[in-house]
Amino acid sequence: MGMIGGGGGSFIGPVHRMAARLDGMIELVSGAFSSDPAVSAATGKSEGLEPERTYADWHGMITREKTLPDEIRPHFLAIVTPNHLHYGPARMALEAGFSVLCDKPLCMSVAEAIDLYDTVHRTGRLFCLTHNYTGYPMVKRAREIVLSGEIGDVRKVAVEYFQGWLSSPVEKEGNRQAEWRADPSRAGIAGAMADIGTHAFNLAEYVSGLEVVSLSADLHSVVPGRVLDDDGNLFLRFDNGASGTLLASQIALGEENSLSLRIYGSKGSISWHQMEPNSMTVRWPDKPMQIYRTATSFAELGMAAGRHTRIPAGHPEGFIEAFANLYRNFALHIAAVNSGTAQDHILDYPGINEGVRGMKFLEASVASASEKSFWKNL
Amino acid sequence: MGMIGGGGGSFIGPVHRMAARLDGMIELVSGAFSSDPAVSAATGKSEGLEPERTYADWHGMITREKTLPDEIRPHFLAIVTPNHLHYGPARMALEAGFSVLCDKPLCMSVAEAIDLYDTVHRTGRLFCLTHNYTGYPMVKRAREIVLSGEIGDVRKVAVEYFQGWLSSPVEKEGNRQAEWRADPSRAGIAGAMADIGTHAFNLAEYVSGLEVVSLSADLHSVVPGRVLDDDGNLFLRFDNGASGTLLASQIALGEENSLSLRIYGSKGSISWHQMEPNSMTVRWPDKPMQIYRTATSFAELGMAAGRHTRIPAGHPEGFIEAFANLYRNFALHIAAVNSGTAQDHILDYPGINEGVRGMKFLEASVASASEKSFWKNL
Amino acid sequence: MGMIGGGGGSFIGPVHRMAARLDGMIELVSGAFSSDPAVSAATGKSEGLEPERTYADWHGMITREKTLPDEIRPHFLAIVTPNHLHYGPARMALEAGFSVLCDKPLCMSVAEAIDLYDTVHRTGRLFCLTHNYTGYPMVKRAREIVLSGEIGDVRKVAVEYFQGWLSSPVEKEGNRQAEWRADPSRAGIAGAMADIGTHAFNLAEYVSGLEVVSLSADLHSVVPGRVLDDDGNLFLRFDNGASGTLLASQIALGEENSLSLRIYGSKGSISWHQMEPNSMTVRWPDKPMQIYRTATSFAELGMAAGRHTRIPAGHPEGFIEAFANLYRNFALHIAAVNSGTAQDHILDYPGINEGVRGMKFLEASVASASEKSFWKNL
Amino acid sequence: MGMIGGGGGSFIGPVHRMAARLDGMIELVSGAFSSDPAVSAATGKSEGLEPERTYADWHGMITREKTLPDEIRPHFLAIVTPNHLHYGPARMALEAGFSVLCDKPLCMSVAEAIDLYDTVHRTGRLFCLTHNYTGYPMVKRAREIVLSGEIGDVRKVAVEYFQGWLSSPVEKEGNRQAEWRADPSRAGIAGAMADIGTHAFNLAEYVSGLEVVSLSADLHSVVPGRVLDDDGNLFLRFDNGASGTLLASQIALGEENSLSLRIYGSKGSISWHQMEPNSMTVRWPDKPMQIYRTATSFAELGMAAGRHTRIPAGHPEGFIEAFANLYRNFALHIAAVNSGTAQDHILDYPGINEGVRGMKFLEASVASASEKSFWKNL
Repeated sequence: MGMIGGGGGSFIGPVHRMAARLDGMIELVSGAFSSDPAVSAATGKSEGLEPERTYADWHGMITREKTLPDEIRPHFLAIVTPNHLHYGPARMALEAGFSVLCDKPLCMSVAEAIDLYDTVHRTGRLFCLTHNYTGYPMVKRAREIVLSGEIGDVRKVAVEYFQGWLSSPVEKEGNRQAEWRADPSRAGIAGAMADIGTHAFNLAEYVSGLEVVSLSADLHSVVPGRVLDDDGNLFLRFDNGASGTLLASQIALGEENSLSLRIYGSKGSISWHQMEPNSMTVRWPDKPMQIYRTATSFAELGMAAGRHTRIPAGHPEGFIEAFANLYRNFALHIAAVNSGTAQDHILDYPGINEGVRGMKFLEASVASASEKSFWKNL
Repeated sequence: MGMIGGGGGSFIGPVHRMAARLDGMIELVSGAFSSDPAVSAATGKSEGLEPERTYADWHGMITREKTLPDEIRPHFLAIVTPNHLHYGPARMALEAGFSVLCDKPLCMSVAEAIDLYDTVHRTGRLFCLTHNYTGYPMVKRAREIVLSGEIGDVRKVAVEYFQGWLSSPVEKEGNRQAEWRADPSRAGIAGAMADIGTHAFNLAEYVSGLEVVSLSADLHSVVPGRVLDDDGNLFLRFDNGASGTLLASQIALGEENSLSLRIYGSKGSISWHQMEPNSMTVRWPDKPMQIYRTATSFAELGMAAGRHTRIPAGHPEGFIEAFANLYRNFALHIAAVNSGTAQDHILDYPGINEGVRGMKFLEASVASASEKSFWKNL
Repeated sequence: MGMIGGGGGSFIGPVHRMAARLDGMIELVSGAFSSDPAVSAATGKSEGLEPERTYADWHGMITREKTLPDEIRPHFLAIVTPNHLHYGPARMALEAGFSVLCDKPLCMSVAEAIDLYDTVHRTGRLFCLTHNYTGYPMVKRAREIVLSGEIGDVRKVAVEYFQGWLSSPVEKEGNRQAEWRADPSRAGIAGAMADIGTHAFNLAEYVSGLEVVSLSADLHSVVPGRVLDDDGNLFLRFDNGASGTLLASQIALGEENSLSLRIYGSKGSISWHQMEPNSMTVRWPDKPMQIYRTATSFAELGMAAGRHTRIPAGHPEGFIEAFANLYRNFALHIAAVNSGTAQDHILDYPGINEGVRGMKFLEASVASASEKSFWKNL
Repeated sequence: MGMIGGGGGSFIGPVHRMAARLDGMIELVSGAFSSDPAVSAATGKSEGLEPERTYADWHGMITREKTLPDEIRPHFLAIVTPNHLHYGPARMALEAGFSVLCDKPLCMSVAEAIDLYDTVHRTGRLFCLTHNYTGYPMVKRAREIVLSGEIGDVRKVAVEYFQGWLSSPVEKEGNRQAEWRADPSRAGIAGAMADIGTHAFNLAEYVSGLEVVSLSADLHSVVPGRVLDDDGNLFLRFDNGASGTLLASQIALGEENSLSLRIYGSKGSISWHQMEPNSMTVRWPDKPMQIYRTATSFAELGMAAGRHTRIPAGHPEGFIEAFANLYRNFALHIAAVNSGTAQDHILDYPGINEGVRGMKFLEASVASASEKSFWKNL
């Protein structure tokens, strides 16, 4: 693969590289790691790239890499830049014949998202959006249980994503991760909702198998001087009539990365928490609650969870492994397409459609919040 | 004390009696336990009351009991009937010179609530409303910490109360607890919001020390055929500008009695969960999270928690003990007033003001929900 | 009932009284609460006893109370004194025709225990030993599951009871609870093993349905100057060949009252922890672990747990309620015997046999420890 | 690096390769992956090795690889074979000038261990033994706290390692992991004690900073037909006089990989559990318990934990990441030695001394168990 972004003090760049490396299937061969050519070069060097495969800008990179012979040309480009630099590189890469793996949220607007959606379908390239939390084995198992109908009709969804790292104005104190997230020109129309709300939204739709049709939002900029939302709550209505809530905050002081999902059906319910990702609870009205655990044989009946775990039960797999599952599934899909073999549809990963959904969610949320929580359709 | 309601298949009647009995300070001397005279008599007998102190109706009970000599007349009457039978007995008891302990919600409307408020103040009697969750030691400690300013300005409140016992139409299947709760003529304008939402609301205001000034509600009747809400979510705005959410459901299948509160401040945060009531977590930006535990010496610095616990740390105290704390505090207050001694204001308990707040909360919630979540002031 | 001990600064006296009072079935009518007549009188007064039913010493109490007419004579005496004052009052009470409820450990030696055992059987009186942890609903359920054979043959038992309150020499600093426990003339041949090790031992035998046949002990007096053990570990061998461990400590600094039990069978395993007593976990090789919860309908199939709970699931019942279950069951047994009705054997409680077992356990433990952990038979 | 073992159905081989790969610092360049040449070749091919660097046996591999020029010769060999194939390859590799990373336990006897110890010191090569659980950030932090004296003198150590995967005779049912572990000719003198007991022993010594001086063991072969122990318990005595227990089992049905450590000091205590590795609890007598969390700034004061984490708090790091920390630290040490730069002694890893300790532990345990738990010195 080639990488765009992820140099210097990036948080997500190294995560992508560890995830790509973990299973020994993907090799980083080129990169435009930063808008600062020196930073890009330094990152390329530390990653062991050949100097001529490290680029000063993504435009130049795509332009040249697409001309390379098949044997050395990357199969896909990973885009790990701030939000405003997703659309451009993604579109150019697709047009240049590359498949694309892109960080979330997809882009800056629904219009851009639809254009990318069209581009993906027109070019026939593959696209992965790193809603990485769907890569956890117990999330896969939860989805299987819900979709199987075991818990009956979904009646209620409660998803929540609380962090505390933006409780003070760290974007003005040198925190590079906070800087661009607090800047509308780089982050887009939303802050916390874009950064983590979209993850929560995606997780809820993925596990429930439902789509949100309308929402009412109450967004806040709690820390003085902050322009974008750093905290917000939503009422949700799903396409089957179920209701839900989505709570997301980056000023929930003391919270680390607390993403949780609960889905209540007419026959049972499930709950999962990202900070203890290897457990997933199923509750029933007439028998004891059950706790499924990663890598236990009985948790793998449907195969979905089992194919997303590497080591025996009780040896905790975490964030990097879940992230690596997306890379692995995406790489397997590319390999299957390239070799013309059958594609195993169990090994799913979030794609361009999830990207469009996320942008619709963001635009509806911001619109609702600006009209005193008036309900908006997606 | 005397008791109105709580006979036969009552859930809350026995709880009140256990709570009253636990500390050996309060004696049940009379009762009108049911609208069915036979049931009332049977309950009185099983409680060891003298037959002439067991009444066929509350009106007759108050009429006669108020004429009894001081030595045997109850100091207060406990009203543990369905909601529609709170106002009448409470008002008559107050006018008859009794202090009153009443189950929640206070009554059927804000108008009734204000009338009771006025009656309490006019008669000078004491009034306790059994928002029993405030009786837990760790809730007292949490309130102390928040009010002390240790966690800074409150920015965000997330309170949640999930149960699953109304996931099917049990009100039509002989469940007496469900029957009256599902019947507007006995429950009032709200279902889950009245039954458990008011507890969550009270807990949030109690621990935060803030008042909700406006709210937006999304209420649902999920189980087919049910008239009143059995599930609902609210956005909250507090008088200091903080925002919040209140989620309450009785169709969250698999949930038992899951009440939790989290309060996020500018310097720290607290969280507490009723189903593990003896722990309370405080998180900080710059040091390890702390877990306070009931009955540990250091948890009692402020005395509030320490005076609400009976046994050493690690010997779990539960729901009945917390409920008993309200009875104990109320009895101590009555005794102090009767004896003219100083009243220890630490040993607080919820009263008539909390009752008025709860009714305002209910009327605003129902009004908002009926207008597509339009924000309403309390 | 009448009570011997439990005056003044007693910890366990008030617990016994709350437990006795909770269900409204038992009335305290007399007491010799302390060896200090003034303390005894004061306790009697605060408990509302008639002055002539409060005694300066237990000998005088038993002598007079046995002469009282049936209607006012207590049905049983509760002995809540330090260990050295169990045997004498218990024996005299039994001989005087009273049933006896006694705190643990039963007495000071196996010889005394056997004598009490014989006395109970000779007099035909009932006897309850307050190994109160067996009163928890989930302990009842665990025992049912193990005895049913669901988890197969028991292979391994791990019981543990850690406290930290004796981490410093508080017995020399005015802590009355510690004083007598550290004094061999009042506590007996063992310290922590007598105080909490016997609870752990009883719990292991009760839930497993097995008897320990031999043990190897490693006991310690960790805090300088302490004569009796304050920490110790044992290997156990059960009568079916299973092995086990019993770890008990009162110098495990930071631990509150951490009693836990795990039993591993050939088909499954169970675990329970006293500090979260309303959950009990069952694990299986081929299906998800299950968590049973107090007061959920499915947890009550065998009726054992269901008859030991008072309120709906999720309303935590704790230490006092479990303790009250012993009192309630004992009182029901006495009432059944007195009225000649059938005795419901489900509502069991620990008795004189458990007392003898505990003393054998203590003598074997101390003997083994004094011989470098040489294995000893019970 | 080069690898000996880890082909075909190996569990630990892929773990080693993922751990080596994660941080992008170590490249696998050669291997003798199996005693079956075809398996070795297949593994080498799937790992992308050049065919001539894949060997049919380790002897041939070492013989040839040592002759390769510096630029392509591996800096160290990783030995991931069953226990009986540690000593031979390790010794030959050291003599051939390679540093060695070896799986645990070190070898088959104390005599072999001492010979390897001498060889390491004579050759001046570096040696890493993969007691991987010491690689967790919170284990590092726990050790720092204990060694700093914050919790006072260590009085009591309770370490436990429970698994359930050998609850049935899977070694006779085709489970390759179980086959060699149950075979004395390949596993050595002990079963569970060698496989997991040594991990527990190492963890206890590492975090406490103490050495076990004597022990008493009670070992069992629970599953019929099994020769080696599959369950066992030990009393421990440490060099400062503290006592301890080590419980290890592979027939604790339902347990996954439950390794936990608790250390009680005179001023505080710590506890850590491998299955929730990112939390570590510290308890105090006079203030609330604290929970340290991986990757929170305040958890990294001493730098030890901070240098062993990759991503922000709340993004769980697990087993592979901890394992990778050993590889990373070992590689950094080799690089520092090779480049002559200062060696950062914080970035420690278990080495040859830990290997000797483990073998002494095993021989003493087996000897004690064979003499009815007679105490043995290490």
